[in-house]
Amino acid sequence: MTVYEVGPRDGLQNEAAPVSTADKAAFVNRLSAAGLPAIEVSAFVSPARVPAMADADALFARIDRRPGTRYAALVPNLKGLDRARAAGVTEIAVFAAASETFSRRNINQSIDESLQTYSGVIRAAREAGLKVRAYLSTSFGCPFEGDVPAARVVELIGRLLDLGADEVSVSDTIGVAHPGQVRHVVRDLTAAHGVGRLALHFHDTRGTALANVLAALDFGIATFDASAGGLGGCPYAPGATGNLATEDLLYLLHGLGLDTGVDLEAVCEASLALEPALGHRLPSRYVRARQASRAREAHGRG
Amino acid sequence: MTVYEVGPRDGLQNEAAPVSTADKAAFVNRLSAAGLPAIEVSAFVSPARVPAMADADALFARIDRRPGTRYAALVPNLKGLDRARAAGVTEIAVFAAASETFSRRNINQSIDESLQTYSGVIRAAREAGLKVRAYLSTSFGCPFEGDVPAARVVELIGRLLDLGADEVSVSDTIGVAHPGQVRHVVRDLTAAHGVGRLALHFHDTRGTALANVLAALDFGIATFDASAGGLGGCPYAPGATGNLATEDLLYLLHGLGLDTGVDLEAVCEASLALEPALGHRLPSRYVRARQASRAREAHGRG
Repeated sequence: MTVYEVGPRDGLQNEAAPVSTADKAAFVNRLSAAGLPAIEVSAFVSPARVPAMADADALFARIDRRPGTRYAALVPNLKGLDRARAAGVTEIAVFAAASETFSRRNINQSIDESLQTYSGVIRAAREAGLKVRAYLSTSFGCPFEGDVPAARVVELIGRLLDLGADEVSVSDTIGVAHPGQVRHVVRDLTAAHGVGRLALHFHDTRGTALANVLAALDFGIATFDASAGGLGGCPYAPGATGNLATEDLLYLLHGLGLDTGVDLEAVCEASLALEPALGHRLPSRYVRARQASRAREAHGRG
Repeated sequence: MTVYEVGPRDGLQNEAAPVSTADKAAFVNRLSAAGLPAIEVSAFVSPARVPAMADADALFARIDRRPGTRYAALVPNLKGLDRARAAGVTEIAVFAAASETFSRRNINQSIDESLQTYSGVIRAAREAGLKVRAYLSTSFGCPFEGDVPAARVVELIGRLLDLGADEVSVSDTIGVAHPGQVRHVVRDLTAAHGVGRLALHFHDTRGTALANVLAALDFGIATFDASAGGLGGCPYAPGATGNLATEDLLYLLHGLGLDTGVDLEAVCEASLALEPALGHRLPSRYVRARQASRAREAHGRG
């Protein structure tokens, strides 16, 4: 099983408070030391549009590169790819959408335009020997259009793979997926594309993320995205993304006897160490239950 | 599918703020109008020990009895049964534990002593024509003893059924169960006792409740307990029980195409109508996502 850690990018990008490059680097280093095999560290996007990711170059210069750990960065275009390569990035991610309206609002391009852009980015990245991941957001529903046909998701995944993506992360951007839908969609996706190049990216907005993972495991999916502590996903914050917490995912997978190579307690410590910089507690249910349990033990209440 | 609503009892008993009998009655009436087939309304326990349930008699006098809805009450002993019968209660619940330490700390009796007590309560209740439900708490783990052997859970369920319980609700009191454990335990339980008289009561303390429900559905379990709004289960409150929210459960079940006869939106409205009396927002992820989505729509942000 591969747990793909998106907290430093997807999580921090959605946090209100600015976090220093030093705190980010310490966070990434703790996550890699915990055994997470792949970490999306930052995004080489416009600093004006996404100030939280403006220090991508400095952050990549600062992190410890643990042998065997994959450190990835989001890259929207060739300019971003150049910056990423200059920073020594060996794995990039591009960000497409399954909904036309979401694509236009999120990256100001139609789906076709974005695939045209990514075609050049992916080709250049592969020529430079980089691995490429593609996100396909709103694959289970769109905040503007509602339902998204599974056939369209199947087709767009095929186009992204044809462009040269090594893996497509099929994303439930608004956390609307439930296991009934997951079974239907993932059946179609795996029938068309196999399981080896598919990852699933669930949000816990409606509490269904772990149930969705359980449903997807039945189809052989072996890569799931998650965000340490549920970073970027506090369900009480307006506009929060509701990221599935890495700790909650690990508790599920380890309970099923599945090997991830990740130390759950060490991930908890990484999340908790970041909380002072965020100014609020992280929403991971596993982390909160662990802390409540420790507080009770400290007070002798069993 | 039967969704057994425990919010008015299990939920409100764990809320800090006192809620008036009128507010409780309105809540119960909204829940029954939403189509919930079984509602645990209150507990006929010592008012000195559990002040939040002191108005059990007055509450049962005040609720509308919707034809077809089952209204239940927790009853710890023969005195409580007398009060329940005087209040016109037709379905009671007793509360046993699978952990010796938890039993002694929670109800001040050993497991054997509690079953002795319940033997008389169940016999008298059945002679009076009442239905009887038994909870078996700490069935997936104990806050004091840790692991609880599945063989002990199997044995205690058998004893409760032999005493005359119509149904046993197998409860993950501390919310530690994960699907790997659920598959193992529920396989043993259903092998020994069939599925018809078993209910499952999961807590979402570590975010696994819906995944556990999904795992249990594979074994034919058709009754699940839940608390409207996640009442009594705010994961941010110290000592919270982490009740699975009825709305979250309904979203899962309906997404699987399973018929519950319950109107999800009406349950949301019942939960939201109670919030002013509680003084805080309820933690159901479905409810919070619904409210955030409505707020975005109202502000024209899609």
